[in-house]
Amino acid sequence: MSRVAIVGTGHSRFGRRTDVNVGELAFESVKQAIDETGVGRKDIRNVFVGSAGGWYEEPLPAVVVGEYAGLSGAGTMRVEAACASGSAALKAAYNSIVSGDGEVAMAVGVEKMTEVDTPTSVELIGRAGSYMWEFENYGMTFPAYYALYAVAHMNRFGTTEEDMSRVAVKAHHYGSMNPLAQFQKEITVEKALGSQVVAWPLKLYDACPLTDGSAAVVLASEGVAKELTDTPVWIRGVGYSSDTANLSRRSDYVGLSATVEAAKRAYSMAKVTPQDIDVATAHDCFTIAELMAYEDLGFCKKGEGAKMIRDGETELGGRIPVNLDGGLKAKGHPIGATGISMAVEITKQLRGEAGRRQAPTRNGIGLVHNVGGTGHYAYVTVLSRN
Amino acid sequence: MSRVAIVGTGHSRFGRRTDVNVGELAFESVKQAIDETGVGRKDIRNVFVGSAGGWYEEPLPAVVVGEYAGLSGAGTMRVEAACASGSAALKAAYNSIVSGDGEVAMAVGVEKMTEVDTPTSVELIGRAGSYMWEFENYGMTFPAYYALYAVAHMNRFGTTEEDMSRVAVKAHHYGSMNPLAQFQKEITVEKALGSQVVAWPLKLYDACPLTDGSAAVVLASEGVAKELTDTPVWIRGVGYSSDTANLSRRSDYVGLSATVEAAKRAYSMAKVTPQDIDVATAHDCFTIAELMAYEDLGFCKKGEGAKMIRDGETELGGRIPVNLDGGLKAKGHPIGATGISMAVEITKQLRGEAGRRQAPTRNGIGLVHNVGGTGHYAYVTVLSRN
Repeated sequence: MSRVAIVGTGHSRFGRRTDVNVGELAFESVKQAIDETGVGRKDIRNVFVGSAGGWYEEPLPAVVVGEYAGLSGAGTMRVEAACASGSAALKAAYNSIVSGDGEVAMAVGVEKMTEVDTPTSVELIGRAGSYMWEFENYGMTFPAYYALYAVAHMNRFGTTEEDMSRVAVKAHHYGSMNPLAQFQKEITVEKALGSQVVAWPLKLYDACPLTDGSAAVVLASEGVAKELTDTPVWIRGVGYSSDTANLSRRSDYVGLSATVEAAKRAYSMAKVTPQDIDVATAHDCFTIAELMAYEDLGFCKKGEGAKMIRDGETELGGRIPVNLDGGLKAKGHPIGATGISMAVEITKQLRGEAGRRQAPTRNGIGLVHNVGGTGHYAYVTVLSRN
Repeated sequence: MSRVAIVGTGHSRFGRRTDVNVGELAFESVKQAIDETGVGRKDIRNVFVGSAGGWYEEPLPAVVVGEYAGLSGAGTMRVEAACASGSAALKAAYNSIVSGDGEVAMAVGVEKMTEVDTPTSVELIGRAGSYMWEFENYGMTFPAYYALYAVAHMNRFGTTEEDMSRVAVKAHHYGSMNPLAQFQKEITVEKALGSQVVAWPLKLYDACPLTDGSAAVVLASEGVAKELTDTPVWIRGVGYSSDTANLSRRSDYVGLSATVEAAKRAYSMAKVTPQDIDVATAHDCFTIAELMAYEDLGFCKKGEGAKMIRDGETELGGRIPVNLDGGLKAKGHPIGATGISMAVEITKQLRGEAGRRQAPTRNGIGLVHNVGGTGHYAYVTVLSRN
């Protein structure tokens, strides 16, 4: 099978971006990615736009993004897998090149979430469970879904509220070193533990914010990648899977089976094991989600996620540093952009361009983990310098 | 490159479907496609759902469709290219197999549009131009966009209101033979010409309706396709392109450049010419769109679309029969489902299963033409018995 590399990256500032509309916001990343790659616009055969939509005024973001960036004429589609839409766009772009449909493709993720008021936000996110049954009938909102998982994990494995707070503290620590992050201030375990309860045991600092932002990558076939850059980062494996829309039909609430299956597929395709991963991003929409991800991705055994954060194994200097960009929690979570943003972070880590946040990358292998809904979708991507 | 075939088809009844929710509506097609193929659910590696959304209650249709159909666990994403979402899903499914990600994939298109009231419909469709400028600032709705094209075509080439009415009469004629069509009654040129003006020169009978409906196809790699069926229909070529979101930035209004480019790519990939096409579907959201499609697809020279309908060249017995299923105009246009519905029709035509509506298929080659927005996206797919 032909190989595909990330050859260019772009990333907007994340946060409340009332200064731009959705086309302009995407353009910030698209322009950087094109400039970094040095590729001509006409050479970009296909453009895949990851965006969940519903939060902002344009219902056809793909063509709006394309027009503003001077990419009209390319093959274009929008791709949606809830909060994993960015990873889905990356996968679709990867497939387009492997299947012979052009040598260069772009994946752009964009979301503009802060224009709507808070009740609307609660509804829009809450609908991303099973709307008809669990949101409409039972009034479940998104924190409530993840609170179910948190309670089950606490009950089964002895995970504590303090363990979850530690995830938030780590996120804010690295967010403070990321000039593109929405939150760039440190917090303490005490501050996190004392913050307002949203859906017990989850508190304000257990939850990621609503965010405006974009990210973009340019992908190229092996031959073209080597012409365009000396530091290609190869997409070695992509796994994706799905689970039921209704949480009530899940087998348990201590992990996401879609993540387990997606990881299995990605590791198999990349021919690596979890022990080979130097650095990772994990989908920490809530702090409990990051702890479950450690387990579901095979970084530790089931039930030992909390031990990893207690022992500092996922910090810089630890065994597998996770979310050195601040994660969804501190960097922010513009849902269509997040998967691409994660790929940008791991690409920079593997190129040795992460500055103060640089992890050692002995094996040259990194991992991106991106979840849609509460495990409705999961995408795992393995990136590699070789 | 490995070959991919359509090995199973499913199609719901189109119309006002208050009897089902979106998961149930999709299931009608998914079940037929699986039953016809005889493939196991666990063998379907990836499911691509074409749906524009915004019309119905579920914001994550892909997992809802997957759960109801027993397909949870497959790789899943929703794909959106406005009214070409179905073709985009078909392309994504095709790419997944060619790129080696599983031997069997499903593309499902579904939309449920009749739950919202008429003003909301006008807005939802109207937004599918350029929302910020042309809908919000100038009050353009969708009929108004296509009316611009109709006036320009009349002015440049002498196309008449009667020519457009002939397209509607043809659509209703074949719709009357299609038990799944939304409208199954014949009309006359006089009735079409005398119907209420929506946006001059377009009248009620120049416009397709709002529709609930679904369609599905199962795709397989060459090896598996030959095990599953004796009548595979091969995807020989897929071309897609895009144009500006703003109509004001288009070069002219007598055709869709995205269609011209998509067709060029599809013919090139399939190694066929327009003269090789036995039977086609063309995107007739408005009657003028079908006349422009004849020209943009190369079925005739630019400006001669009206002559084709006057001379009966696109009817049964004519040179290239078009929209023998009734087209968007009479069969209906559930926007996410339309591209897949077209592929189902051409597959049945190439298999010789179209009954009273069967076209002669001497070359065994058919074409699907599906447009998103007003040429924001265009997808052209060439299907073949060999």
